[in-house]
Amino acid sequence: QPFTIPFRTPSDCGAEEFFDISSLSCVRCGPNQRRSTTGLSCVCQSGYKTVTTDKASISCEKCLPDKPGVTKDGFGCIRCPGGLNNDGKCQCPPGDVLVERGLNGTLLEEARCETCDEDSPALSVPNRNGDRCERCLAAYVNTSCACKSPNVPGGGLCFPPGILSTNVNPTVTYSQLKFSVQSAWFLENLYSSSSACFGFSNLTACQALGNMCVMNMHSFSSASTDACGLFNTIFRFMGALSSTQGISYWRANLPWLYYGDEPGLASRMQTDPVPIGFSFRGKNKNTDFRLLAAVYDVRGEFLRWEQVGGQNLQLCPQPKTKQAAAFSFGTAYKESCVLSVAQLFATHPEPLFYDVFLDLGGGANTKLLPLPTLIQNQQYNGRFINQESMNNWYFSRRMFLVDTLSGREKSTSSQPKVIRVASSVKIRFQLVPRTQEGKVFPPLMTVTYTDVLITDLNAQTVATTFAVEYEMDQSEARLKTDIALGVLGGVAVLYSLLKTISWKRRIASSLIDLETMVKFLLFYAGDLANVFFAVTVGTGLYWLIFYKAQRFVSVLLPLPAQEEQFVTYIGCAFALKAVQFLHKLALQVTVDIFLIDWERPRTKTNRSVPVSGESKHDTSPVSIWRTYFVANEWNEIQTIRKISPTFQIMAVLFFLEVLGFSNLALRDPWSNLQRSPEEYTPSYSLTLRYGVAATLWLCIGLLQVIFFTVFYAHFVEDKIRQFVDLCSVSNISVFILSYRCFGYYIHGRSVHGHADTNMEEMNNNLRREAESLCAQRGLLPNTEVQTFQVSLTGRLGLQYKRIQESISRRNQPSRLTDASALSSLEPHFKAYQAMNHFLGSVIDHAHSDMDYIVKDKLMFENVIGMEFLEPTEKSIFYNDEAHTFSNVLYYGNEATLLIFDTLFFCVVDLGSQSFVLAAVLTYVQQVIFRFLRNSLGRKNLANKTLVDERFLI
Amino acid sequence: QPFTIPFRTPSDCGAEEFFDISSLSCVRCGPNQRRSTTGLSCVCQSGYKTVTTDKASISCEKCLPDKPGVTKDGFGCIRCPGGLNNDGKCQCPPGDVLVERGLNGTLLEEARCETCDEDSPALSVPNRNGDRCERCLAAYVNTSCACKSPNVPGGGLCFPPGILSTNVNPTVTYSQLKFSVQSAWFLENLYSSSSACFGFSNLTACQALGNMCVMNMHSFSSASTDACGLFNTIFRFMGALSSTQGISYWRANLPWLYYGDEPGLASRMQTDPVPIGFSFRGKNKNTDFRLLAAVYDVRGEFLRWEQVGGQNLQLCPQPKTKQAAAFSFGTAYKESCVLSVAQLFATHPEPLFYDVFLDLGGGANTKLLPLPTLIQNQQYNGRFINQESMNNWYFSRRMFLVDTLSGREKSTSSQPKVIRVASSVKIRFQLVPRTQEGKVFPPLMTVTYTDVLITDLNAQTVATTFAVEYEMDQSEARLKTDIALGVLGGVAVLYSLLKTISWKRRIASSLIDLETMVKFLLFYAGDLANVFFAVTVGTGLYWLIFYKAQRFVSVLLPLPAQEEQFVTYIGCAFALKAVQFLHKLALQVTVDIFLIDWERPRTKTNRSVPVSGESKHDTSPVSIWRTYFVANEWNEIQTIRKISPTFQIMAVLFFLEVLGFSNLALRDPWSNLQRSPEEYTPSYSLTLRYGVAATLWLCIGLLQVIFFTVFYAHFVEDKIRQFVDLCSVSNISVFILSYRCFGYYIHGRSVHGHADTNMEEMNNNLRREAESLCAQRGLLPNTEVQTFQVSLTGRLGLQYKRIQESISRRNQPSRLTDASALSSLEPHFKAYQAMNHFLGSVIDHAHSDMDYIVKDKLMFENVIGMEFLEPTEKSIFYNDEAHTFSNVLYYGNEATLLIFDTLFFCVVDLGSQSFVLAAVLTYVQQVIFRFLRNSLGRKNLANKTLVDERFLI
Repeated sequence: QPFTIPFRTPSDCGAEEFFDISSLSCVRCGPNQRRSTTGLSCVCQSGYKTVTTDKASISCEKCLPDKPGVTKDGFGCIRCPGGLNNDGKCQCPPGDVLVERGLNGTLLEEARCETCDEDSPALSVPNRNGDRCERCLAAYVNTSCACKSPNVPGGGLCFPPGILSTNVNPTVTYSQLKFSVQSAWFLENLYSSSSACFGFSNLTACQALGNMCVMNMHSFSSASTDACGLFNTIFRFMGALSSTQGISYWRANLPWLYYGDEPGLASRMQTDPVPIGFSFRGKNKNTDFRLLAAVYDVRGEFLRWEQVGGQNLQLCPQPKTKQAAAFSFGTAYKESCVLSVAQLFATHPEPLFYDVFLDLGGGANTKLLPLPTLIQNQQYNGRFINQESMNNWYFSRRMFLVDTLSGREKSTSSQPKVIRVASSVKIRFQLVPRTQEGKVFPPLMTVTYTDVLITDLNAQTVATTFAVEYEMDQSEARLKTDIALGVLGGVAVLYSLLKTISWKRRIASSLIDLETMVKFLLFYAGDLANVFFAVTVGTGLYWLIFYKAQRFVSVLLPLPAQEEQFVTYIGCAFALKAVQFLHKLALQVTVDIFLIDWERPRTKTNRSVPVSGESKHDTSPVSIWRTYFVANEWNEIQTIRKISPTFQIMAVLFFLEVLGFSNLALRDPWSNLQRSPEEYTPSYSLTLRYGVAATLWLCIGLLQVIFFTVFYAHFVEDKIRQFVDLCSVSNISVFILSYRCFGYYIHGRSVHGHADTNMEEMNNNLRREAESLCAQRGLLPNTEVQTFQVSLTGRLGLQYKRIQESISRRNQPSRLTDASALSSLEPHFKAYQAMNHFLGSVIDHAHSDMDYIVKDKLMFENVIGMEFLEPTEKSIFYNDEAHTFSNVLYYGNEATLLIFDTLFFCVVDLGSQSFVLAAVLTYVQQVIFRFLRNSLGRKNLANKTLVDERFLI
Repeated sequence: QPFTIPFRTPSDCGAEEFFDISSLSCVRCGPNQRRSTTGLSCVCQSGYKTVTTDKASISCEKCLPDKPGVTKDGFGCIRCPGGLNNDGKCQCPPGDVLVERGLNGTLLEEARCETCDEDSPALSVPNRNGDRCERCLAAYVNTSCACKSPNVPGGGLCFPPGILSTNVNPTVTYSQLKFSVQSAWFLENLYSSSSACFGFSNLTACQALGNMCVMNMHSFSSASTDACGLFNTIFRFMGALSSTQGISYWRANLPWLYYGDEPGLASRMQTDPVPIGFSFRGKNKNTDFRLLAAVYDVRGEFLRWEQVGGQNLQLCPQPKTKQAAAFSFGTAYKESCVLSVAQLFATHPEPLFYDVFLDLGGGANTKLLPLPTLIQNQQYNGRFINQESMNNWYFSRRMFLVDTLSGREKSTSSQPKVIRVASSVKIRFQLVPRTQEGKVFPPLMTVTYTDVLITDLNAQTVATTFAVEYEMDQSEARLKTDIALGVLGGVAVLYSLLKTISWKRRIASSLIDLETMVKFLLFYAGDLANVFFAVTVGTGLYWLIFYKAQRFVSVLLPLPAQEEQFVTYIGCAFALKAVQFLHKLALQVTVDIFLIDWERPRTKTNRSVPVSGESKHDTSPVSIWRTYFVANEWNEIQTIRKISPTFQIMAVLFFLEVLGFSNLALRDPWSNLQRSPEEYTPSYSLTLRYGVAATLWLCIGLLQVIFFTVFYAHFVEDKIRQFVDLCSVSNISVFILSYRCFGYYIHGRSVHGHADTNMEEMNNNLRREAESLCAQRGLLPNTEVQTFQVSLTGRLGLQYKRIQESISRRNQPSRLTDASALSSLEPHFKAYQAMNHFLGSVIDHAHSDMDYIVKDKLMFENVIGMEFLEPTEKSIFYNDEAHTFSNVLYYGNEATLLIFDTLFFCVVDLGSQSFVLAAVLTYVQQVIFRFLRNSLGRKNLANKTLVDERFLI
């Protein structure tokens, strides 16, 4: 069994026990003893004198009947002139002092009761112990210590009559709780403070009166006799001539509580900047500001100058290093916590009052700037003026943090009915517009008090907040954004119109119908999305760069409330981009595609074997496997992109979360990536978060595009180029129509005539080509251009469409029964052959009425994406070395995909404030759309080329 | 210009100015006045008496020459018996009192100097103000207040001679700084405290002596006269009979400082559990423990019982809610911070001493358990015994936090030379082994003091830590782990031997050479990695489940120091797994593969055309495109897996970081996933982190495997099945040799005889098969089994190898010049044809000496991965419907890959404590290895099958 001891406290011990501080237990006192008031030792019972022995413990001896009283020090017995009190000591009449010893310390035989001489010149009263006469305090009446009529007693002092009416109103109003309290403190001190202040210009009395006004929330009505009413009466009486420090709101001897009662002062305060400038870096770096407070106690005594922060305004317990961040300019600071009322009671038995100033520096000639304070609870004639519009605000000065005093009703030591806590203290800096030197207007302090009705002291809590905010006028930035949006939006309309016209031409239609309108809106959605995206990324980047990199402070971040419009713009960009993305997806999975097989059956005109005339038509079938191969490869390149989307996500996550780029989005002016956990971490700015994430996403995306199109495509593999090569080698051309009369053509006719051969010949062919022993691959002789944009004449388009329809009509009825399917497939293969033959002959210029010409596209045509020439007589094949046929694949729409992903990532992040979640959801979104695009694209391919889906693996 | 005021403090004002608390500026005093000591008001100059006027300001009047002295209260003039002092007041000889007023308060004409009667019975001395005689304090000699020889004065008291030798040693030793200080406090109080304690059993004196010993780090040597030496002298003198509370180390009147000086007590303390049990959940939930401290001041006064936490032991400023977590059982708590020395000075002018107890509860009969304390700085005969092994430890009691007193050299109010701070306070709970009721041994408190040499008070800082740790004896768990490792390791040896034997058989060799040894080690690496992995995941999961879900506390997490072995095991698992993975990779990219084309040239024996005898050999070449297609598809399935590795990473990240599963790894007993930022966040346990991450990774991986093999493969696509189908349709068989005489065969002979045909016939063929109008695909007639494991006879293997070598020999010389390449390719194609013909004829049973049989594999053979039959006469084709040929692909090695990824993820996370970084690096690792596997695999494929790499896209 381990050592244990019973738990005993001094109050657990009985009346004749004391608490032994050595053994932590209760021990019985000696005879005739009882425990002392502390409980830690024993004293003699009443009527017994203490006799010291040589040991520490005392012994007690009964006083003899002739000297029955025990002296005050307890060590002797004495005869008493009057009676004995309950403690067994001598008792004198009230107002008298008890004298037990002579001047040289010898104990008298009999104690004496002396009456103190109250009148001038002695002016003496008994001291606190009642054993001596002392001079009474100077108390405005210097004829006698007693306050005789007509003098007026008040607050322990004595006033000559006629200074102020004694009819003062000692109530404190708790407007949140809708009741008033007759405060014991006010009852005791309001009249005396105001009289002493008014009648005798007593400095502490004036401060005490001011404090009472502050405890009453600075509230006043024009004619009242409460604390603020009395203060204002005295203030007006003082007259403007007696103003202090050249400030007309501050009268001599009085504390400065109000900034006059003229409304509209709030806006006028914001015209003169503070004569210091803040700078984030460089040799003039100046970010820390210092707030000083003159601290007064409730009696009006000046205690000290105190630097604000830490114990005084920052009530929440936080490490010093974190709390110091509140006074670093530009760092949005907020600390909140819930404090127990019991604890506030212990730490704030009496309220302290703070007059807060901003230290302007200047060495020995340091200047201070008084901070105007906005008390949210202040009432004027019963109205909460400071909760109304800024024009009605009344500024004031002086605040307190916790007031447990004014709510005491019976006496100043009873438990209060209500306590008041400054539940929110907010200091707001406003930047001077267009400043280049970090000038600010005088900061404004906003204080909100909460009235707490005391019901259960130990269980009650109160929430408090301390915040420092930085604000600048955002209207200019907003205007610029709106102008940019307007201008670019206009350009977008024009561009969309152009696209619509181009589209009309490509479908060979000139009717303006509902479809045209819808198409215009779809194009416009995409362009407008780009505009919104450009403007929002620009804005995000602007704040990121200008806020984080500025030297002298010239811009400050928008407050969360000012960011709403920005977030709306991002939402618009995302929604519109999604429309564009889905539109493109829908176009891609319905594109017309046909694989032209140039291979002709091998007749007997085989090089190695002599031909026999009769077997002219004796052909082995052309193998379909090359078509399968090409279709399979086309199926595989549908969703390849110029970037690796997963690597993109991983890289962004790595930069944001591992390298700490997300710390750039914190609301402070520092641009270091790693923050120690001891530092204060401000909240995130949505603007910066968006700016960092979008910029990072775009940059990494751009780097990836460059890497994949420049390095990877040249040195590792280029899937698009490989596909074109494959077409050439396999003797298969690809004909793609994205609109009725516009599309792409990949010329894949083998330069060797045949591709359907064995491995040896294939390799020989490849080698001959590598050694340039054969013709070039181009459509025109001696050219290498294999890829074209084609602009068809209406007739050709129509013809194509007709054959195409008979190829893909099988969808509807054929799958009812297998038997019917078998028979119904026949016409499709016929149509397939017809199409193969038709397109082949068109390319071979066999149809004179559907002939075509090959030309280069103008640069400008490429830029605006529209053909100037209308193909009326002949179709036009535009040389296209840039492989723009990838426009019907993911590959050619990297910009749209990248922006869509960026916006998706950012929108999720703005909603959840979690980059990891955004990354995961972006990945899931990509997987889903890629799966959709792949399976729908495969279905479409199978449908349009008749290649069985089983070969598209 | 905004309002500004100059900054003035009371000390800025001149000698004839006072600080006006209303205007916060300096104001000149009236005539004959100077400022008071506070600087906030004016007082009369010396020699002037104060005259109150009706206004608040005073006026001063010079005292007339006949009464030149000013009274002490300043309001009157008086004649002095002696001279005047500097303040212009009367001066009396030292030891005399100055009397200015009569008993009733009237001012005397002339002041009187009175000498106090020191002797019994008056026993009076001047009071503090020097204006009155009072009884002197009881001070062990009760004949006179003066301490006359032979009595010994000490510490303001007077002792009779012969109690103790006055030769005491008042030095405090700072062993970290290697010097001693003659402490003013010790000088003043050491003798008096020890005398009063020893001679008069004075309780506070004994405590004060004990406190001095504590300030001296409990250090003592057997014969010394410093504080602890004196304490021990008195302790021994007291004798065992006077022990307090039944505890022999605690003597009456003395504080309890030591647990005796017998070594080895530390281990004996750990035999009796504390009589309370902790429980994490359920209706007996009991997690909060309460520490109580008896607080004494440096003078030995008992101040109060105080609950430990918050202001006393937890020096770092932290929110209350966080600090409370320190006293929640099972939550590893640690707070550290750097405190400024100046601040410690302000808050701890004198040290407080704490006797800490654990509250055992029990209502009115509450019991307390004293916490043994281990002072790291304690010296015994100059040795730091408590920094040595546990057997030498000396426990003690009583501690302090900050001692700014003992280092003061000149006087007790001078600035100290050194201060001492309890820089580390650690409370450690040790669980009773095999407890089911949450029993613990008495917690041990370990205190480390730091000596800070004061050089620059305002700049110096000191780091402090407060920690609560929970520990249990891990030797049993470790033993179990080791047993598991040993047993499983033995099994692994056997299994690896089996694998090696199987391998020897498969390469048709029976020699035990170096290669065999290496191979054995490689197999063993893989198996041992699995063993380590199983054991570590098991351990992690064990702790996760048993620690987080237990009701009554029965296990506690291993401390970070105890986790080293565990981390080593994980490292081993990872390293060994990496070896296995690289081995498998190397095997896979060197596998032998050949595509057998069954298609025979179409002779004139075409169904539709009559045959002419002469053109018997007139064949069109067999198209190579089907082979290209199959090779291309084989290339594509090389790195597909049974899971999506990226989805795996994303899902794990989502669970860990977004859903908050990472919070399960915190060192506290709670299993909720979301923690509020106001709560205390303990550190992470590596064991739990590994447990959570590995379990999550395996579970998600398993779910994915199930999803992809069951759902996805059936309803969406199964790449492996598709490949086998493709072989069948394309009339191509695949022959794979992973070892010389062991491999896989995919039978792909078309049931239609020809596959090299046009689209129409292909579709007809497919339809006929779907309608079961043709033969089945199997190798044996009327079977469907297309995939086989093959076990070759040595002869067949040799023959294959010979032809294979001539196919792939081109690697070495051919690429020197293109011209030579052209010619040198010829033999390869010959060899290709030969191989095609050879394998075809083997499958067709055309070689009687290389015949084969088809049979089923035994279940047990499958389980241990070894064939019992040795193929001596005939090769054996084992039916293999499970597609085990995927063993030469990623697909068939999912377990290895998944475990490798898991270990990679966990190892990165253990190293960096960042799941995001682990996820990113795991992704990068996967991409790199996939790229390697793909490109090396493609090269191998091109090499072995002669398919040009350009077709493997």
